[in-house]
Amino acid sequence: MDAAPQITLEDGRAILASQPFSRLLGARLVQLEPGLATLELDLTDDLRQQHGVAHGGVLAYLADNALSFCGGSLLGPSLRSSGFTIELLRPARTGPLRAEATTVVFSGRHAVCRCEITGPEGTHAVAQGRVTAVA
Amino acid sequence: MDAAPQITLEDGRAILASQPFSRLLGARLVQLEPGLATLELDLTDDLRQQHGVAHGGVLAYLADNALSFCGGSLLGPSLRSSGFTIELLRPARTGPLRAEATTVVFSGRHAVCRCEITGPEGTHAVAQGRVTAVA
Amino acid sequence: MDAAPQITLEDGRAILASQPFSRLLGARLVQLEPGLATLELDLTDDLRQQHGVAHGGVLAYLADNALSFCGGSLLGPSLRSSGFTIELLRPARTGPLRAEATTVVFSGRHAVCRCEITGPEGTHAVAQGRVTAVA
Amino acid sequence: MDAAPQITLEDGRAILASQPFSRLLGARLVQLEPGLATLELDLTDDLRQQHGVAHGGVLAYLADNALSFCGGSLLGPSLRSSGFTIELLRPARTGPLRAEATTVVFSGRHAVCRCEITGPEGTHAVAQGRVTAVA
Repeated sequence: MDAAPQITLEDGRAILASQPFSRLLGARLVQLEPGLATLELDLTDDLRQQHGVAHGGVLAYLADNALSFCGGSLLGPSLRSSGFTIELLRPARTGPLRAEATTVVFSGRHAVCRCEITGPEGTHAVAQGRVTAVA
Repeated sequence: MDAAPQITLEDGRAILASQPFSRLLGARLVQLEPGLATLELDLTDDLRQQHGVAHGGVLAYLADNALSFCGGSLLGPSLRSSGFTIELLRPARTGPLRAEATTVVFSGRHAVCRCEITGPEGTHAVAQGRVTAVA
Repeated sequence: MDAAPQITLEDGRAILASQPFSRLLGARLVQLEPGLATLELDLTDDLRQQHGVAHGGVLAYLADNALSFCGGSLLGPSLRSSGFTIELLRPARTGPLRAEATTVVFSGRHAVCRCEITGPEGTHAVAQGRVTAVA
Repeated sequence: MDAAPQITLEDGRAILASQPFSRLLGARLVQLEPGLATLELDLTDDLRQQHGVAHGGVLAYLADNALSFCGGSLLGPSLRSSGFTIELLRPARTGPLRAEATTVVFSGRHAVCRCEITGPEGTHAVAQGRVTAVA
């Protein structure tokens, strides 16, 4: 744990840039500190559903990735997400969207993180997930 | 419930075609019956993360949308997803991916649905979520 | 997996009998087969909340234990639950309550299981959780 | 929201005392403020599983009830829990256990709350759930 190869913001940005899906959506890593990660995303027309608001899958992408980077800030880059729970609270019509994840519990090989997705209209979703270091 | 404006497969395909995010990802609705919805997706290069497997956000998109269509098959098109839980089980290197959702409980205004995401390599994720009719 | 020390119904009943909390609540293990576990519980007055229906914690207990026994039917007795999600659907006024869990995915060391809690009034809750073998 | 019939600590204690299941387990409400609720529980022998640690169902009870009281602190006493997700992190051998729930998002009729369950040994579980006002 002390020796864990933590990810720096620069490392994190390089990882994000090497994720084709994150490039497709246009996500930006704006903060990465031990136990904390924040992604941002402009709400372009491509990211909407039939009623013009952000597709639930876009909010879920943000949650998944912010939780993973948050876990990675403590566990290092070799990790896997075990999954997450997301509560969808309010449709998002305007961006940018901001997914801020924090670590609730960190036990060396596991981190449980939470994420709140906000935008100019308020809070759109909250999520909780578990990230595990891969040997 | 008997009178609910159920979505047919044709309706569902029109809805999917009107979701820019689903077009961006290339999802196809291959089945829609009362209490059952199946989406498929080719695993193109754009949908991967840094290790070449499907991004978790792609699996989460599939879960979110399959659960919503599944709920919509009983609740009609005016609905909202309250959120879902996804367990990420096995990275997906090859497609097509298939998200098959079924209804567990339907109570007139609410449906709880489950979804299994599979591909040529096996089962990649399972999800459970709640969909609510909007007045 | 083939060699996994599966729990038989008799084993399972001995385990349940050695759980003080399960004795306190009066749970019965009525079925245990590979990938399948069913618990039953009489809805005694002690198990209710202020409005006379089953306390949510009782439903959550049933989910937790049925999911664990279900995982144990494939993983053997040395396991831990990583947690679960429960959707509370309908208050339960009458018993017995029945929690039937089935395995969705089993991968040697992990099992993802689902559980439905029913009673004379219908379906009260559905849950999904992950169980892991402990070395 | 301003006019919501909030629950005071005294109200909350009366509600808890009227829950037979909470009396059976011996839970105490030690804090109730708008957006915040804390329950405590001694880890008596009755609350354990076969290995002598707290039964997962006990942690789930604490989560369910702390989340509900937390939501009730803003929504008033007429509410229902839609369900919750709990991550089980570390077995609890000693008590008292303390479940502290806070509100993440409150929108008049809904509250999403989080809960952390700790004890002398550290953090045992974290949970997230949704509570809804009943008309």
